[in-house]
Amino acid sequence: MNAIQKPRGRMFFANPGPTNIPDSVMRAVSHASIDFNDADFFELYERCVAGLKRVLRTKQHLFFYTASGHGAWEASMANLFNTGDTLLVIETGHFSESWAKMGKALGLCIDTLPADWRKGADFCALRAKLAGDTEHRIKAVCAVHNETAAGTMLDIGAVRAAMDAAGHPALLLADTISSLASLPFEMDAWGVDVVVGGSQKGLMLPTGFSFTGVSEKALEAHKGSRIPKHYFDWSEMLTRRHRSFIGTVPTTLFYGLAESLRLLEEEGLEQVWARHTRLARAVRAAVKHWSGNGPNSNVGGPELYCQDDARASDSVTAILMPDGHDADAVRATCRNRFNVSLGAGLNKLAGRVFRIGHLGDLNEPMVLGTLASVEMALKLNNVPHRPGGVAAAMEELTA
Amino acid sequence: MNAIQKPRGRMFFANPGPTNIPDSVMRAVSHASIDFNDADFFELYERCVAGLKRVLRTKQHLFFYTASGHGAWEASMANLFNTGDTLLVIETGHFSESWAKMGKALGLCIDTLPADWRKGADFCALRAKLAGDTEHRIKAVCAVHNETAAGTMLDIGAVRAAMDAAGHPALLLADTISSLASLPFEMDAWGVDVVVGGSQKGLMLPTGFSFTGVSEKALEAHKGSRIPKHYFDWSEMLTRRHRSFIGTVPTTLFYGLAESLRLLEEEGLEQVWARHTRLARAVRAAVKHWSGNGPNSNVGGPELYCQDDARASDSVTAILMPDGHDADAVRATCRNRFNVSLGAGLNKLAGRVFRIGHLGDLNEPMVLGTLASVEMALKLNNVPHRPGGVAAAMEELTA
Amino acid sequence: MNAIQKPRGRMFFANPGPTNIPDSVMRAVSHASIDFNDADFFELYERCVAGLKRVLRTKQHLFFYTASGHGAWEASMANLFNTGDTLLVIETGHFSESWAKMGKALGLCIDTLPADWRKGADFCALRAKLAGDTEHRIKAVCAVHNETAAGTMLDIGAVRAAMDAAGHPALLLADTISSLASLPFEMDAWGVDVVVGGSQKGLMLPTGFSFTGVSEKALEAHKGSRIPKHYFDWSEMLTRRHRSFIGTVPTTLFYGLAESLRLLEEEGLEQVWARHTRLARAVRAAVKHWSGNGPNSNVGGPELYCQDDARASDSVTAILMPDGHDADAVRATCRNRFNVSLGAGLNKLAGRVFRIGHLGDLNEPMVLGTLASVEMALKLNNVPHRPGGVAAAMEELTA
Amino acid sequence: MNAIQKPRGRMFFANPGPTNIPDSVMRAVSHASIDFNDADFFELYERCVAGLKRVLRTKQHLFFYTASGHGAWEASMANLFNTGDTLLVIETGHFSESWAKMGKALGLCIDTLPADWRKGADFCALRAKLAGDTEHRIKAVCAVHNETAAGTMLDIGAVRAAMDAAGHPALLLADTISSLASLPFEMDAWGVDVVVGGSQKGLMLPTGFSFTGVSEKALEAHKGSRIPKHYFDWSEMLTRRHRSFIGTVPTTLFYGLAESLRLLEEEGLEQVWARHTRLARAVRAAVKHWSGNGPNSNVGGPELYCQDDARASDSVTAILMPDGHDADAVRATCRNRFNVSLGAGLNKLAGRVFRIGHLGDLNEPMVLGTLASVEMALKLNNVPHRPGGVAAAMEELTA
Repeated sequence: MNAIQKPRGRMFFANPGPTNIPDSVMRAVSHASIDFNDADFFELYERCVAGLKRVLRTKQHLFFYTASGHGAWEASMANLFNTGDTLLVIETGHFSESWAKMGKALGLCIDTLPADWRKGADFCALRAKLAGDTEHRIKAVCAVHNETAAGTMLDIGAVRAAMDAAGHPALLLADTISSLASLPFEMDAWGVDVVVGGSQKGLMLPTGFSFTGVSEKALEAHKGSRIPKHYFDWSEMLTRRHRSFIGTVPTTLFYGLAESLRLLEEEGLEQVWARHTRLARAVRAAVKHWSGNGPNSNVGGPELYCQDDARASDSVTAILMPDGHDADAVRATCRNRFNVSLGAGLNKLAGRVFRIGHLGDLNEPMVLGTLASVEMALKLNNVPHRPGGVAAAMEELTA
Repeated sequence: MNAIQKPRGRMFFANPGPTNIPDSVMRAVSHASIDFNDADFFELYERCVAGLKRVLRTKQHLFFYTASGHGAWEASMANLFNTGDTLLVIETGHFSESWAKMGKALGLCIDTLPADWRKGADFCALRAKLAGDTEHRIKAVCAVHNETAAGTMLDIGAVRAAMDAAGHPALLLADTISSLASLPFEMDAWGVDVVVGGSQKGLMLPTGFSFTGVSEKALEAHKGSRIPKHYFDWSEMLTRRHRSFIGTVPTTLFYGLAESLRLLEEEGLEQVWARHTRLARAVRAAVKHWSGNGPNSNVGGPELYCQDDARASDSVTAILMPDGHDADAVRATCRNRFNVSLGAGLNKLAGRVFRIGHLGDLNEPMVLGTLASVEMALKLNNVPHRPGGVAAAMEELTA
Repeated sequence: MNAIQKPRGRMFFANPGPTNIPDSVMRAVSHASIDFNDADFFELYERCVAGLKRVLRTKQHLFFYTASGHGAWEASMANLFNTGDTLLVIETGHFSESWAKMGKALGLCIDTLPADWRKGADFCALRAKLAGDTEHRIKAVCAVHNETAAGTMLDIGAVRAAMDAAGHPALLLADTISSLASLPFEMDAWGVDVVVGGSQKGLMLPTGFSFTGVSEKALEAHKGSRIPKHYFDWSEMLTRRHRSFIGTVPTTLFYGLAESLRLLEEEGLEQVWARHTRLARAVRAAVKHWSGNGPNSNVGGPELYCQDDARASDSVTAILMPDGHDADAVRATCRNRFNVSLGAGLNKLAGRVFRIGHLGDLNEPMVLGTLASVEMALKLNNVPHRPGGVAAAMEELTA
Repeated sequence: MNAIQKPRGRMFFANPGPTNIPDSVMRAVSHASIDFNDADFFELYERCVAGLKRVLRTKQHLFFYTASGHGAWEASMANLFNTGDTLLVIETGHFSESWAKMGKALGLCIDTLPADWRKGADFCALRAKLAGDTEHRIKAVCAVHNETAAGTMLDIGAVRAAMDAAGHPALLLADTISSLASLPFEMDAWGVDVVVGGSQKGLMLPTGFSFTGVSEKALEAHKGSRIPKHYFDWSEMLTRRHRSFIGTVPTTLFYGLAESLRLLEEEGLEQVWARHTRLARAVRAAVKHWSGNGPNSNVGGPELYCQDDARASDSVTAILMPDGHDADAVRATCRNRFNVSLGAGLNKLAGRVFRIGHLGDLNEPMVLGTLASVEMALKLNNVPHRPGGVAAAMEELTA
């Protein structure tokens, strides 16, 4: 068999973002140009705003940016703080680190609550930290709801509870880029002040806009912010007709957003979340099987990077390779021979981890076809593993 | 879990036709209207004709019809014969029966070479039949290259050999609707006089045109044909600029055809065939495993409808259910719960057989995702089977 | 200025068929393959059947063909008659001739009611003809509602009145290929027995299916028909689930049909007709102005081919060039320099006539941009004409 | 006639941005998600970078942003300066004002070279200003190449000449958002240090990315910049694989960019510019005709906002209404009755000016259909004007 041949058939895109774009969304996005001040567009836009607020579970404010998620991150910081303000970043992995790095670049002081990436945040330490901050030096707590790099989930409701327990007045900022419209999230019920999200994950759209849900409290705090900004400036946006966006609005994406919101609400948000949980469990069942680790065995196969099942992400799974085996070789086999695109390990996890994204427009055969390809790639790369991971996933899906 | 929920994710279309349309072909088909006499279109059209002849492996003639494959069938008969002419139809299953029925409707006498659909044609009987026809009453032999309903393949080269051995001058008509651009086929080398094909199978296009490759010998025979016709009349077509088509040309499909031909030639026809063989073997490995029949066991699971491995189709597999179990229940579970569309059993096989199409734009994870869904559906419907079919397919694909 | 440069911008497609495909229809057509027996598709299909009957203004029968309009023509004849039956074809131009030719090829006797193509049918002669047929030798009257080649309209209601006046029992067959969903048409009210239509004109779809509306009376007549047929056989179709189509259904076009029906009904059929009338009048105003013929002048410019305003088609205008000037040179300038595609003169009108299609998804600036290009092409080709045709059209549109 | 009916036919999008997206670009953009680190994408990306540099006419640097043009503006300022630095903004209209406002928001001191918007920049004053800045307090000159709001063009080469004449070392920043790939522009030859551009104008793409061409000199200056930034930070970008973009890359737009670059180079950049000039002249000929102002007449019709023909923009024309007449009423008639979308007057020009965009994928009939609709709308709104503007445009196009 010739592995060099051009892959055929549909690419299985098992990256944690961007995600698969449903055909009907793709068709909707293929819309001719329109004046973003045209009455027809404005009506569409307002419907999208209302729908997205329902996804965020908020009745507060929403600002859009023609930007990737990193732009919304910058907006969340530039609009709220002043040079020298202190933020507490709950470490979860690569993306919490990146957000922290961005904060420093913007002139903020970052206090990091350290964590073992495989285990997730230490809530005892968080409570202690907040309780100890009697002067309320911490202006905001930054929490990545779903750490895409590590495949872990952070309980935002529990973060809020810790803040409340400490009576701490800091703002709560949550990055939901790889969780929104995939994992349960409740902006208002959880008292989240700023929610950062993007178009290209659970909303199943091309990359192109990002947004922040913003609480009244945050909007109040914004008034005192002095970090230089314009493109992301909420005050500037509030003077515009769309009360969002500086400059041209990416109109075509809103035709797609209307359709993705329709799909989400047709299925029902709770059903969407349940589907993500179901598929994620199947993926983890496969990986646990491959690892071959149990009371009486130790195959030493690939294993879940996340060591705490209760914190495993339901939208992306990071898989740690056995020592001496290259994650990127497995990815290359999947990509070149089976037309399956897996996520790479990021930064310090490069080569040691590969990731399976399982969020957005996904179903059982898509996940099982991916898992089967991974299992074949493990075999073809002579990676030790216990065969039968796909069967374990199927068992999970039909239990 | 709620099986009633709206299926999400991409539909796995495992029907034997139409087939999956690659994105690039779909995009090409989405072309604005153009005058089919426009010079730009004519240039495209001529390129397509040349390319399709390479797929047919012929240097002879080609006629297109705005019609489904049945239209090309009608063209193949209406253009060659006179009322009362006798045709020998080699029985293979539902589609050989349908072609025969059409012949009768057009006023032809149909002589059928009977066969057990699960075993395929009896070549001894064929040779005897031809040898016995010393008066050359048989004007044509009609052979379905790939019987989509039974999942069997008929060796057209062997039919030609039988005709040559008998020195029989009949025309050889071959239906390649579900085999062309998927299974090896050689119009000129095999001495096929009329090849019937359509857009929506191995050519990976929407349904919309069909065509016949036509030999010099057949074009000569055409001159004496008196069956009333116009829409499919080759003589009429030869007066038109495109030397094909009566009436408006479905221009948009030719933009798609150019792209599908590009894809086929980029991969290489031999590689395309090899891919179909590889994936078909995986499917059969799974079914054989499910059947659980071996020297020491008899699970009584679903089994291959085709009882002769050498004649099993590499583009579609028909699977016979155990007695008392409903194929359509399995199909319904796949469709409603897993968004996998399987082919139904046709006519007398309805409810007893389901079919997996594995032709066109297909790869390993698409096939394995489908097989996994079928295996789960067998379990959910309490159909006896030996679990592990997917693993057997994976084994076959990595052997 | 360099006329050889590659044309840019959107092509203005002013051909009388196929027609411009609206973006939303194009997007709808770009649908993935689906089993045409899938319940989801069947529901869509039934909606389309009901909607198309509303467009035909009938409550009777409808048969679809995977075929161009010529296929539906063949169906209309092959399903109703026997060899040697006589049909009266009302001459209108190229397409009435073609239909007659097809009838002959199918073994029918064609009696033509001759006409001056520039003036249209002679109703006195028609009445005389029908009255004289006391033996009812004429089995059907074939009438082309809108003669695309001549740009003339035939009053089908008046044909029915003539038949009724003569008490003639013949069937009435009407070709509405270039009029349906553009010009007023009433199948049931006008007592039309067979209506022939296609996808690629007023329905604004790609070429790919055609259809016939069929009255109870015609379906009764069908039972006695003995012309050999299968692909177009209504009896065969009535045994199928869709009660239409032999073979694979072109599913993707039905997604488009649902959208085009939605567009038509959103605008309102009467409004659609009114729009066609409005735009057609603008086109004719321009041509009349170019011709420059009036009481006191004779510029000798291009003129309307149709000499009777009351019979001018509201979906296509044929324009006759002054002697010694080549219509195709004007067309070439429009196509190559302005990216405007005009219809050619057909057969005996080749080179003498060019045609502007103005049916389907069309509005004022599309028509005016086309007329402006034609007027510039007349100038560039030194064709005598009175400048100001576009202004005359604008005047008509704002009167 | 009923003006309330739903507009039909293709919308004529005569807005100055976004612009019409060619079908082939739209199809290319409709690409499935892909990992932006995938080798296939990286190859595409590099081709796009090379092609876009050819459009910018530079061999220096290029940074992309997932942002609208305003984001690239912010990048151009945030990457080069420090709080309190002085920039000289050459006033041209709304967009020069907006850029200046953004600079202030980022903490810069803005020195404006005032101008009459209808006449454009005063080069004498510019030369004087630069000569007077002997201390080189001015760190950069900001010039909007094409003022979209006023419909005027600023000669960037002349700005460079003025700077050189004064021996002034300031950086030269040019906004080419509505001119790039439409009007002649030469980054390297004109010594432009930062060029700001976006996807949605001459590049004929949906809104979604913007970019800056950056000279070596500017990259050197960047090293000393201390304005807080991250999302737009060039230094940060240089650490990334794509040497551009912070965060997810909008991959689908690059499939479109490759196609739009192919279209531009197939036509030839010089031919693209010539086409824009040709079409712009036609638009201006129509407006001048409508104005009816000449030696012997004064109709008092709408007139060109730009009073200096030599400075009229070839990509957008702003039209000033006669006193007492509402530009937006004309726009509403065009939009609602003729499906033509015109640009509004911005800010202080609101209601007094409407704008016709004529850039990107445009040809003669598109422009003439638009002009005809405008002329009809003038009539329908009883705006004084000399009829015959379309004819004047046609005359210009065939002179």
